[in-house]
Formats: sequence, C-alpha cells, structure tokens
Amino acid sequence: MRVSIVGASGYVGGEIMRLLLGHPRVDVAQVTSERHAGKFVWQLHPNLRKRSSLRFSPVADLDPCDILFLAMPHGKGLESEIDFGAVAPVIIDLSADYRLKDAAAYPKWYGVTHPRPDLLREYVYGLPELHRDRIRNSNRVSGAGCIATAAILGLMPLYRAGLARDDMVVIEGKSGSSAAGRDPFPASHHPERSGVIRPHEPAGHRHTAEIAQELGVGRVYLTTTSVNVVRGVLATSHVFLKAAVTEKDVWSVYREAYSAEPFVRIVKDRRGSYRYPDPRILWGSNYCDVGFELDGDSNHLVVMSAVDNLMKGAAGNAVQAMNVMSGFDETMGLEFAGLHP
Amino acid sequence: MRVSIVGASGYVGGEIMRLLLGHPRVDVAQVTSERHAGKFVWQLHPNLRKRSSLRFSPVADLDPCDILFLAMPHGKGLESEIDFGAVAPVIIDLSADYRLKDAAAYPKWYGVTHPRPDLLREYVYGLPELHRDRIRNSNRVSGAGCIATAAILGLMPLYRAGLARDDMVVIEGKSGSSAAGRDPFPASHHPERSGVIRPHEPAGHRHTAEIAQELGVGRVYLTTTSVNVVRGVLATSHVFLKAAVTEKDVWSVYREAYSAEPFVRIVKDRRGSYRYPDPRILWGSNYCDVGFELDGDSNHLVVMSAVDNLMKGAAGNAVQAMNVMSGFDETMGLEFAGLHP
Amino acid sequence: MRVSIVGASGYVGGEIMRLLLGHPRVDVAQVTSERHAGKFVWQLHPNLRKRSSLRFSPVADLDPCDILFLAMPHGKGLESEIDFGAVAPVIIDLSADYRLKDAAAYPKWYGVTHPRPDLLREYVYGLPELHRDRIRNSNRVSGAGCIATAAILGLMPLYRAGLARDDMVVIEGKSGSSAAGRDPFPASHHPERSGVIRPHEPAGHRHTAEIAQELGVGRVYLTTTSVNVVRGVLATSHVFLKAAVTEKDVWSVYREAYSAEPFVRIVKDRRGSYRYPDPRILWGSNYCDVGFELDGDSNHLVVMSAVDNLMKGAAGNAVQAMNVMSGFDETMGLEFAGLHP
Amino acid sequence: MRVSIVGASGYVGGEIMRLLLGHPRVDVAQVTSERHAGKFVWQLHPNLRKRSSLRFSPVADLDPCDILFLAMPHGKGLESEIDFGAVAPVIIDLSADYRLKDAAAYPKWYGVTHPRPDLLREYVYGLPELHRDRIRNSNRVSGAGCIATAAILGLMPLYRAGLARDDMVVIEGKSGSSAAGRDPFPASHHPERSGVIRPHEPAGHRHTAEIAQELGVGRVYLTTTSVNVVRGVLATSHVFLKAAVTEKDVWSVYREAYSAEPFVRIVKDRRGSYRYPDPRILWGSNYCDVGFELDGDSNHLVVMSAVDNLMKGAAGNAVQAMNVMSGFDETMGLEFAGLHP
Repeated sequence: MRVSIVGASGYVGGEIMRLLLGHPRVDVAQVTSERHAGKFVWQLHPNLRKRSSLRFSPVADLDPCDILFLAMPHGKGLESEIDFGAVAPVIIDLSADYRLKDAAAYPKWYGVTHPRPDLLREYVYGLPELHRDRIRNSNRVSGAGCIATAAILGLMPLYRAGLARDDMVVIEGKSGSSAAGRDPFPASHHPERSGVIRPHEPAGHRHTAEIAQELGVGRVYLTTTSVNVVRGVLATSHVFLKAAVTEKDVWSVYREAYSAEPFVRIVKDRRGSYRYPDPRILWGSNYCDVGFELDGDSNHLVVMSAVDNLMKGAAGNAVQAMNVMSGFDETMGLEFAGLHP
Repeated sequence: MRVSIVGASGYVGGEIMRLLLGHPRVDVAQVTSERHAGKFVWQLHPNLRKRSSLRFSPVADLDPCDILFLAMPHGKGLESEIDFGAVAPVIIDLSADYRLKDAAAYPKWYGVTHPRPDLLREYVYGLPELHRDRIRNSNRVSGAGCIATAAILGLMPLYRAGLARDDMVVIEGKSGSSAAGRDPFPASHHPERSGVIRPHEPAGHRHTAEIAQELGVGRVYLTTTSVNVVRGVLATSHVFLKAAVTEKDVWSVYREAYSAEPFVRIVKDRRGSYRYPDPRILWGSNYCDVGFELDGDSNHLVVMSAVDNLMKGAAGNAVQAMNVMSGFDETMGLEFAGLHP
Repeated sequence: MRVSIVGASGYVGGEIMRLLLGHPRVDVAQVTSERHAGKFVWQLHPNLRKRSSLRFSPVADLDPCDILFLAMPHGKGLESEIDFGAVAPVIIDLSADYRLKDAAAYPKWYGVTHPRPDLLREYVYGLPELHRDRIRNSNRVSGAGCIATAAILGLMPLYRAGLARDDMVVIEGKSGSSAAGRDPFPASHHPERSGVIRPHEPAGHRHTAEIAQELGVGRVYLTTTSVNVVRGVLATSHVFLKAAVTEKDVWSVYREAYSAEPFVRIVKDRRGSYRYPDPRILWGSNYCDVGFELDGDSNHLVVMSAVDNLMKGAAGNAVQAMNVMSGFDETMGLEFAGLHP
Repeated sequence: MRVSIVGASGYVGGEIMRLLLGHPRVDVAQVTSERHAGKFVWQLHPNLRKRSSLRFSPVADLDPCDILFLAMPHGKGLESEIDFGAVAPVIIDLSADYRLKDAAAYPKWYGVTHPRPDLLREYVYGLPELHRDRIRNSNRVSGAGCIATAAILGLMPLYRAGLARDDMVVIEGKSGSSAAGRDPFPASHHPERSGVIRPHEPAGHRHTAEIAQELGVGRVYLTTTSVNVVRGVLATSHVFLKAAVTEKDVWSVYREAYSAEPFVRIVKDRRGSYRYPDPRILWGSNYCDVGFELDGDSNHLVVMSAVDNLMKGAAGNAVQAMNVMSGFDETMGLEFAGLHP
C-alpha cells in the first residue's frame, strides 16, 4: 500500500514516517515539506539516518497514492490549493480542522470561520476506542488532540456507564515540550524551558471543545501545565459522580471498556513506583494508561490517564486508525513496548 | 541571638542552616543529627563547604539557646525525650505535629492519636501573611506544608473577600523530588524518577486538612503529581465563585491582600514566558508568586501559585516567622532574588 | 528457539527480555531473579505490562534451553552453584567476568583473583564489528562494557589502519544514570543526581582494561563523568596520529570499516543540531554513531562515539551477537530506529 | 558608587544587575538594551520582579557613572559609536574583545582583525586569582571565558609550581545551555536540547587561545560537550607531569595556591556524592571548585574544576574584580552559598 505524508518535517509527520517505514504493509511513497524540499529526511529527523533515503518533496509534486496523512498546522490544509481528495481515496488529517462537528465552535475556539462546514460530518473523530466501526467504514478520519485523547480515554467509560455527572468535569493536563511543535520560540529556549512547572493555558484551551463534544459534558474545566519533559501527557480528572460507588464498581466499568483494547491498559496497583499511569514509560509506545482513585467519603473520583503525545496522542493513533481502515491487525507497526528505565 | 537546629541533616534543616549562616543577627549555635553526629555539616550539605566548620551534635548535647528550629520527620519531636521547651523559650517546629488544630484530625490524616492535644492551640500556623500578629506575639510556631502554603496563599484573598464558594475547591499540586526528603527509596532512584509526570497522591494527601482548616472550605479535593524537577511547587486551583466577577474585581482583591507583602508577588502579565507563576525562577528565593485567570462565561476562576518547597514552603518561611517573632526586618537573611535562567 | 535470562530483574536483563519478547525467532522460556521470584515481570519492568505474563523464577528452577543470557553483577555468575553450561549449549554473559583475556588483569581492575582463568579464552569479546567470525563460531560470548563499546567502535578503524599512535589515547566517557544499575544509593537519589556534571571515575575506570586490550594501546587514559540523563554514553577520544592525515583519509578509513555495518553510522555533517554523534536520539536503538574532527595544525584527531548504554552498550549488542551465533539476520528484533525528538 | 551596565538584557548582563542590586556599596544607575529599551528589567529577567523598577535605556542615553560593565556580544563594543571611556573611568568588559593579548590571534580564533590592537595591553585578564594586583591597579579589566576560567583555575597551580609539562594539555569542557546566550536557535529548542550529550566544539574552541595564553602551554587540546543542564561548567583536564609526584605533593601545591582564596575550594574527599567538583551545587554561587586524581602508575594527573558559567564564569567574577578595583571586601555582594539539593 502506497502512503504519503504531507507536512512531514514536523514532529508528528516525522513520527508517522518512522512508524510507516517499519510497517510491513506500507510503502512510504512521498513525504512533503515546502521549506525543506530537496533535503533528505534524516536531515530533519536524525533518527532516520541510514533508515531511509527519501527526500522531502513540495506538496505540488504529490503523486496519487492509497492513503494520505496530513500533518500540517491547523488551517493549512483547508487553505491549500491541492485537492487532497484527488490524490488519495483515504485521508487521515491530524490537524484540528475536522475535530469539531459544530461549525459554530470554530470561531470560538480557533478564531476562524470554518470554510467548509459541509466536510465536518464526513470526518470521523479518530479514536478507535470510541468510534472503531465508523472509522472502519469511513475514508476520512480526523486526529484527536493529545490532551483530549488522554482525558477522553480516561473518562469515557464512566460517562458511557452513566456514573458521572454530565454537568461538569475538572481536568488538569500536564504536557511536555514536544507538544508545541518543531519551531523554536522564546519560551521553548532550553535555558527558559528546562526545569519549569509552568501554567500553559489556565482557561480556554482548545482541546476543551473536543472533550466536551465527545463526552457530552456541559462544562469542561481544562487547565494545562508545561512540565520538564519532551514527551508525555498526563491528564488528571476530577469526576463528580451521580451516586456513591465502590472501587469494585469502577473496576468493572473500566474492565468492560478496556480489557479487549490493544492499546489501553488499566494501571492501578497497590504498590510500586508505577502503580498509577506515568507517561515516563510510554515514550515511543502507543499505549494509553488509565488509572483511578476513589475519594472515600464523597462522590468524587480522580482519574489519571497518560499517553505519549506524539504517539497515542498523534502519530501512533493515526497509524492505528489506518490499520482499522485497512483491515490490518490494529497493532501492526505499533509494537514497540516503550522503555524502562 | 543564638539559634540551634534539631534535625539539621535533612534538606529542610540544611536550608535553615544556610539561611541562618547568612543572617546578620543570628549565630548558629548547634545543629543536631543522630545519624551523622560528629561529621562536618558540609559533608551532608556540600554547598556549605568553606562556609561553616560546625559539626553535627547528638540532640542530647543541646545547650540552651534563644530559638530552636525543629526540622524532624513528623512525630519524632513528640516522641523525643528532650524537653525542647527547656532548651529554648522560642520554638519553630517545621513538622506537621502542630499544624492541625483539631486533635481528632490526626488519626484520620496522619494515622496517629496526637499525644499532646493540649499543645495544639499553643502553636500558631506559621504563615505570616495569614497570622502575622499572632506569630509576633507567640513563642510557638508551626511550619506549614509546602503544597498547603502555595494553595492557601493563592486562595486566601478570595475567601477573605467572600468571593469563593466555601463548599468545594479543587486543587492540583505539582512538586519536585526534594519534597520527599533526603532518604533514597526505589521511586526516587534517578533512572526511575527522572522524566516522570507521576501521580503522587490522587486523593487523601495530608495537606488537604491544613488547607481546609485555614480556608474554611468544606471539601478540598487535592491531587498531587510529581514532576521532573528537584525544587518547586505549583498549585493550580479551581475556585467556584458565588457570583460572576470581573477581572478587575479579582485584581483588586489580590492587590489589597498582597501589595504590602514582602514575599508575595502577583504574576499576571499579558505576554512573556513568565506571565504566570512558575517555580522555575524561585529556587532559593522566599517568594510565593500568585496569578489567576477567569474563565469567561462561568463563575469559575483558576488560581496558580508557586513556591520553592524548601524555601517559602519550609525553611524560608520559618526564618521569615523567626524575623517576625524577633522584631527583625521580615526579609532579613532572605534577600536572595532567585536565578534566571 | 528457547531462551532464558538469568538476572532478569535488572535494567540490562529487562532490556534483553523486552527485545526477545519482540524477536520473531525466540521464545522467552524463563527469566530468573532470586529477590523477586514469583512476581510478574511487569512489576519490575512496567513497560512490559500487557506484554508478558511471565513470572520471575529462582535460578535453581532453570530448565534446559537453547541459549542462556547471564545478566548478573560482576562475579556472581562465577560464584553460582548452577552449572550454566549444563543448562544451555550457548551462553552470552554480560558481566565483566570474561571480558579480559589476561587473568592477571582481574586483581588489578576488579580486585579479585579470577577463579577460572581457563575459561577466559573460551569467551569471545562480544563486539560483532570486531570479532564477527569468531562469535559466529563460538558458543561462549562475553558482553562488552558500555563505555568500552563506544570508545572501541570509535577508535578501532584508526588502529586497524595504522594511523594512530599506540602508546597513548585519552578518552572521556560521559554517561547517564542507568549505567549504575537498578539499586538506589545516596548519589542516585533524584535530588542529588538530577542536574549534575559529576566526575565519576577520574582514573582507574575498569573499562580502561578492555579498551587497552582490544585496541592494543599502551596507555589508555580514561576519565568518566556522570551527566543528567538516564540513558546514553558519549565517548570523546583524543587520538595522536603517527603522521599528518587529511580529512579525506580519515573518511575513507571509517567508510571502509563501517559502510557495511548495520549498526554503526558515521555522523559528520557540516551543519545541523545532530551533525556529530549524540546519544539523545539513540535511546532504545542499537546504533553506535561515530564522528570525528581533525585538529588542523597538529597530528591530533578527536573522535566522538555514542551508544545507548543499555542497548548497543549491553542488551542490544548481546541480542545482535545472538543473531550472529544463530544465523539470523543480524538486525532481527533490533529494528527500532530511536526517537526524535 | 554609581554603576551602569551595557547589554543588560542578556543572561550575563542580567546576572550582573541581580548581583549589583544586592551590593551594599553600589547603586545601579542605568542598564541598556537597544532592542528592549523602555521595558522594565523584570520583563526580561523575571526574577527581578518586585526588586527593581528600572527600565532599559538605549546605550546613547548613558549618563556618566563610576564604573561601566560591558556585557555585549563579542565585537559589538568595538563597533560602538559610544566612547565608553568618556562615560566612566573604570570599564569591565565581559566580551572576548580584550582577552587575547596578541592581536594576531584574533583573525585565527575570532575571524576578525582587531580594530584597536593598541588597547589589548590596557586590559588585564580579569581573574583575580591570577592577576589580583594588576586588577587592583588598573581601570580596564577584561572578563574571562567560562570554560577558560574553570580550566585555568584548575591548572594554574601545577604550572606555577613547575610540575606540568608545558608542551601539551588535554581538556574536556562540559557546559550547560545558558552558555549559548539568550537568543533561541534550532539546537536550543527544548525538545532538541533536552537530554543531550552533544559534542559542541570538538576542536578549535575559542577559549583554547585564552587557556594557552594564561598557562603558557604550547598545545591546548580543548573539546567541549553540551549537557542537559542550564548552568554549569566542568573542565576535566589531563595533565602530563614532568616527573612522578605523590598525592601529597599535589595537595601542597593546591593548598598553597588556594587556601587564602575566598572563591576557590579544593574538593577532594575520600567518599560522598560530592567528593569531586560538581557544578550542580554552584548555581548562583561564585565558587570555583577544584579537585584532582593522580593516575597511579604514570606521570598523569586528572584535574577537575567546576564553575557556574554565569557566575564565576562571567558576572560573579566581574563583580569580584570590581570589588578588587574598588577596595571593597572581595566577597561583597557574592555571599550566596549555592543550593543543596
């Protein structure tokens, strides 16, 4: 299967390339970058040295292929003069351009009027754990935000089971520096960014909208904090329950939701340094680890969920979606277990 | 003034010693450690090399002095055979032994029955920003927890002004590795601790009780997360307001509370890498930086507050309290501005 | 092929397990740990959660298998009551017990008299790039030290080509915290180990002996420094040349040595953040990256070589050696490219 | 005493400002920045919030003052239209513009012909430990390079005592990210810079020339490596001795050189995590820690020396020189002990 990647010089595009170069059923046909056209891919992604002799192409040189990944900044794909649908029958778009189903939400959260509201319903929100059948039967899939992915996978079982109050949820997302992309800016300069515990978006983070949409919650209070790692997202969520539940109740909700999922692990042990989810051991893996703790004397549950923002939070999840759409084993090309230590 | 420190081999004790060695009105008389008695202090605190030729003494060798700092693990001071009150007329105890005023809270939060409930009322909860007059007139001061300090200083103005609902507050504390003290344990081993975003106490953290006590809030939902730094606490708090307020209202509450405080800074700029509080620039300083952001369309306010857990969160605050009790300038010995970058 | 691992609770043993669980021609039969016998492997290696339901066995329960990896501390294998040769016909020992060929070197470098000097010649020093044919034809292979691996692979081409003076070489090895193994100690406590640039062994490092042995150099001046990462070794070597050479000469020596090697990359670009070897992008990969720079007006060459100490510096190299011994493709199970960023 | 700082928006300028704001004998008169003229200093140096209400001035607005610190990039001061000598009778220039005494060295090491070779002899190389009397009697002092400072202070006693061979020394400098200054560049982007052990200048580093000049050594082989910290330099030097010496001989050389120095500590213990110099505990302090280890069976000595590159390696040393020139206590304003942990 011939697959091309548009916007392959960025971190997400580079990870898609790395995963597809190791995917037994895929040939990476073309990878595009306007700014870096002509360069070898390893000049931008040094881990691919001796792995690929591909060079970046300008997007205008795209040849027809079977699947197209779009890994451009938000809005760029919609502005493009290229008709991507004419390039490939199947498109997986990792930008936020098709994540929200209500066109009216784009001015509020992204500051733009969506130019093609008709397309919003064509794209499936790309989390297989939520929408596997729709993804399988679609040829348009949208990526999900990295913090949104962690939060939604952590919370969805509680909402589907009807345990959680749907008027309000409080989520604190902590994330590493790679989430801000490849281009340097003053706050990303190592002497300024190293060692921080830095409020990022105390209110109004764009992923708020995705989370509210997918969970069906009235108010999502999402704050985000930047911490001193390159990869990783941990979402800590405060859920207010409709009624008191036992730990066993919660266990059974999560087990039912996730025991058959290849990429979700329930992490809740009595002891051990890793008894709760910690993105530290997820770098490069496609897992979402989910754990919880009940606050004994109240109807309050803390849910913790962790992903590698570039993997399950972006590139890995996109390849998983591609596997679902293509009828491949869902874990194909995504076997890396993550490193310890 | 002659001052001694009990439990001076730990991180908090070491910081008290460092501060007092540079304090113009204090002579450090004795520093105790049972395990390290006889060693030079710089063998445990290498930054004090060439700064002090003191050696650790066993606590039994304590001579009378003017002020005694107790920097022992929780409970150790209460078990001690030494009558510290006979050693010094003024005691500043940095453990949790006297933080809670309700003896009945100790079994719940610390798993012990308090052996001397009669003493709980003698000790003032040692945040000068809350209880300056009582501290000035007392000879018994208790330290405050590091996360509690950040959270309380961030939130107190809102509660005093009557803006915040007092039934519930949600707080997420993020902290560095020095908060767990000097003794190594498996989860503190660098290969395991470096790079984490690790849930620490999702529910039931002991500082919950202090925060509820000082703010007078019914439910404090406190979660804590360990992040990849040595020093620093950031508390991110979700406050639910009694009624809608404007940003200007909140500004005036904080300005009134803190414009005269030497160690609290309101940090809320329109731009810049440090437009919100970030403990990154507080290492070694005694500041508590406080900022906030209003969530536009709801009665919801996010408050961020940052301290160096060993300074304003422990040793620095204790020296500040000593200055208050002794009639010294409150900033004496605490002038270090913090480093950038 | 059935393979067992002795000493599988440590970092190196865990990495061998991770690699073999993904190796298409290997079944992991047993993994041993005395201290943790009975526990699931993911309790010690959290990245293997949902990957393996193996439990640790005591070494006494070892069943016969095809290949045995020994990943014990130095000396432990020699003291063992188990006859490992009776368990498996092929042994790969990652300790230092068989690295030195001269029994007289053990008292000097390891402080012990070697109990079985007769075995030293049976073991091949396990770097395939040096001794591929001997490894292929042997059933006893010794691992190499992680700093030694980087240094030797960086320097060997120069010595084989006769360019380097063989009386002296100066090497500075910088390494991460995982090199010291799994057990916590005071200097590995995160508050003490984070942020260091700490002299480790200014003189007398044990890998000195391996490097001198393999390169045939009279004096190896090896210093080591601990830096603020978990994984990674960079060896910076100062080579004094017999005569002036051009950059082109050096290029051709390295190209001849390594162009056909699957796991050695020559990294020397004119520009770019990764124009020299940097272990930052090698975490989890089996590459050794090698680069150099000629000091214009003298017969002096600086060679830089980087590995992940747990991969090419230990577990990955051992699996590569297993592939060579077993007639498998040399890269089997070692395909992970490493992560960027 | 009125002191102004030219180029105060950079990291070194900011540190000079921080130190002088706390100096009891100095008033900071003006601080200049062309790019940031009009901004408050805390907008660039967030640690100075609530410490100073100064704003940056353009250099053209400089008023006469008693001492002028120049903290501009190399070459900028020489190009300036301002006659700094007319602004202040005393100038301390932290750039490299006056470090080398031989004008012919500038084309080689800095790629420029020095426009004012006549001034080179007016400036004293500003390390008080080397040139205290000349600094005291001069009104022009040049700063020293940060790696050069560590290396020279580590090695000078051996050269002065005649122990070291003066034909060659091998030095490896490891440094943090703040050494590259305030402006972001691709390799300083946190996702790229975090976690590295990255060769910086394998040959031809500019500090080579300073070291050779001050030590009088024929060949200085200096390599530099960037490591994962913000502050700190460790220089590891291989010294070849003229004849065999004992450890006691070396001790006495260092003791004689440094026992009376306020900012040099000999760090060489038998045990302990900090038994050798480690810049980890020097952040913010003006110390240079020096240690050594003799390689038993050869005439080879390893010297380790550590500084905070922004303090003893730049701003702190400059303030120390100012104190010397002004007849103040040499430690005035430089009392901060550094932090542990």
